Amino acid sequence: MYKEEFVLEIPYGTRDFLPREAAQKRSIETALADTFARWGYAEVVTPTIEYLDTLTIGNGSALEPHMFKFFDKSNRTLALRHEMTTPIARMAASRLKGEELPLKLSYISSVYRYEQTQTGRQCEFYQAGVELMGVPTAAADAEIIALAVAAMRQAGLENFQICLGQVEFINGVMQQVNLSRELQEQIKQSMEKRDLVGLGSIIEQTDLPKSAKELLKQIPLLHGREEMLKKAHDMVVNEQSKRALDNLQEIFNLLKAYGAADYVNFDLGVIRDFGYYTGMVFEAYAPGLGFPVCGGGRYDHMLSDFGSACPATGFALGIERVMLALERQGQQCKVKEKNIYVAYGDGAVLRAIETVTGLRKNGKTAELALQAQSRKEAQAQCQNRNCAELVFVD
Amino acid sequence: MYKEEFVLEIPYGTRDFLPREAAQKRSIETALADTFARWGYAEVVTPTIEYLDTLTIGNGSALEPHMFKFFDKSNRTLALRHEMTTPIARMAASRLKGEELPLKLSYISSVYRYEQTQTGRQCEFYQAGVELMGVPTAAADAEIIALAVAAMRQAGLENFQICLGQVEFINGVMQQVNLSRELQEQIKQSMEKRDLVGLGSIIEQTDLPKSAKELLKQIPLLHGREEMLKKAHDMVVNEQSKRALDNLQEIFNLLKAYGAADYVNFDLGVIRDFGYYTGMVFEAYAPGLGFPVCGGGRYDHMLSDFGSACPATGFALGIERVMLALERQGQQCKVKEKNIYVAYGDGAVLRAIETVTGLRKNGKTAELALQAQSRKEAQAQCQNRNCAELVFVD
Repeated sequence: MYKEEFVLEIPYGTRDFLPREAAQKRSIETALADTFARWGYAEVVTPTIEYLDTLTIGNGSALEPHMFKFFDKSNRTLALRHEMTTPIARMAASRLKGEELPLKLSYISSVYRYEQTQTGRQCEFYQAGVELMGVPTAAADAEIIALAVAAMRQAGLENFQICLGQVEFINGVMQQVNLSRELQEQIKQSMEKRDLVGLGSIIEQTDLPKSAKELLKQIPLLHGREEMLKKAHDMVVNEQSKRALDNLQEIFNLLKAYGAADYVNFDLGVIRDFGYYTGMVFEAYAPGLGFPVCGGGRYDHMLSDFGSACPATGFALGIERVMLALERQGQQCKVKEKNIYVAYGDGAVLRAIETVTGLRKNGKTAELALQAQSRKEAQAQCQNRNCAELVFVD
Repeated sequence: MYKEEFVLEIPYGTRDFLPREAAQKRSIETALADTFARWGYAEVVTPTIEYLDTLTIGNGSALEPHMFKFFDKSNRTLALRHEMTTPIARMAASRLKGEELPLKLSYISSVYRYEQTQTGRQCEFYQAGVELMGVPTAAADAEIIALAVAAMRQAGLENFQICLGQVEFINGVMQQVNLSRELQEQIKQSMEKRDLVGLGSIIEQTDLPKSAKELLKQIPLLHGREEMLKKAHDMVVNEQSKRALDNLQEIFNLLKAYGAADYVNFDLGVIRDFGYYTGMVFEAYAPGLGFPVCGGGRYDHMLSDFGSACPATGFALGIERVMLALERQGQQCKVKEKNIYVAYGDGAVLRAIETVTGLRKNGKTAELALQAQSRKEAQAQCQNRNCAELVFVD
């Protein structure tokens, strides 16, 4: 008995999608695939398994403890992909090298992270996203954000907000106040976790002048609409931070033309959890979810780690998180067409098969009973199976 | 330099799907998902990772050496699923237990097997299929075969043949001649590999009477249309084999009503590579491919291994194999709509964004240039990007 119960379990952090959930997943994925295609992004598929060295290139090794790892038959370490940007960068730097730039690629894939699960975070989960490679302009970043907005709306989400930041703003401030690399790392980690108390105590323990401490503590509080950018401009004296703010303003002007600006708030404390970002970064939040539905940013150095320097920007969206956000917002999954139930009496199976085949040829969704039954049994079965209509052949 | 080349590789037996290939994969998967839904089969999704004990239940342990295995944090052995029937049986016996029968489920999933790759066989590959649980009738088996035919046709394949067998025919013959379990296993293995020479020498080494040896050697040669069933009937004296032949005849009569009989040939030597089959089994072959595109059969005992006895039948289809068969048959992937390229001169970016947004709202597929350029540059770019039409905003 123990054995039986045991084999019915699934591993920690994984899930089954039952019919209703799987239908919603497919409907969201189809909407996203259509949107990405309409914007000129071509889908690609990469292996679920990659060499660990590929996945941990550049700054990726911080995530190594969270990867599912094992060995191939030559004892090289393999891992299940923990995100899609690195595999697509690998593909762009190898099999797509020499293709006309920009590359506009999209994916809908499972990814894997070994971590404590919480609502909206699993060890296996599904991401959809795009990567735009070969263009360093604000127009490219604006397209990515506008496409994220379009994708979420197409998936059925209306109520969400994008928090838009720029990692070069923070980097500029930390260089301006001359912070050691170690302290920079600690401060970024607190900011990423939105741990303001921890951040405060790290800053207080430094021997920075008071004005520098105040400036650093202000960063996570710098959020708002356009007027905040001007305020931030006045707070910093370094060129790097000022260029970052100008970049955000330029992106925002373009987002107005896309009709996407209303979804966007600036938040200069946004730091994403991957180390590879080099410019604008953003996260999308839906009410009632304590984690982003979607996130992304510019990463201009990753492709050079693969030997093929190329500026790039993109985003990834969590499919299960969209499902959860839709549920929290009380939005029903689009009702799918109900089935016709075709049943038959003794000796009528051949004619029933012809009937059901004809219905399907005419575009109907039709289920065939698989044994003869009485009309009364068929009526009960039709109801139990939640079919809309009974066709009884006798 | 070594490092760089190394990180660009992907593991043995895995592949990237570049845009053209990924588009074909999605188009096939969409066609299959639509077909399964139209026949009343609901999609489900199971975890990529399962406990090894779940996957090797019943007869599954023969495949264990071919599984990708690793440990979870409690040192329980996990494995990447090597097929989908077992995980879906697990789901049916747990979270779907008590649902109205029959259960009609479908999936489109990646599966994993560690083996020497050859054309059409990878360590990671994609399968689509259905499972029909709760019905022991020939009508259920016929629906499964007819649905396999409909699915392959919907995916674009026209030229294929189904080889239909029944494992109870062979089991009956082996009991009739009183073979030891060990010899039964050896004979089945040779038959599965279609190794007639090996089969002959195993049979010759037994101390069976000459007539029994002849009968066993005949089995792999028993293929053909309906008249072959009658011939086989006359060759055997045991009830089990005779019932198997009657079952095939009944299934075939139903397939005629489905208009699917022309695709079907009987082949009593068909044994699938999974040990769990208990009734009809089939494989679909396309010309020029040395391996089946699709295969399946009845497996009435697997659910009782999960503590929930229930007859079942189903099939799985290899997505990459369908792609390969289409290619060998010279069939083009459906040409997808070509993009409109929207480019702009200096200062016209905002109007270009409005233009491209309008096109997309009207259902067009439109790509936006991401930096200002001259009309001449835009014309060249439009051509290089293989776009059908240029809209230049200045």
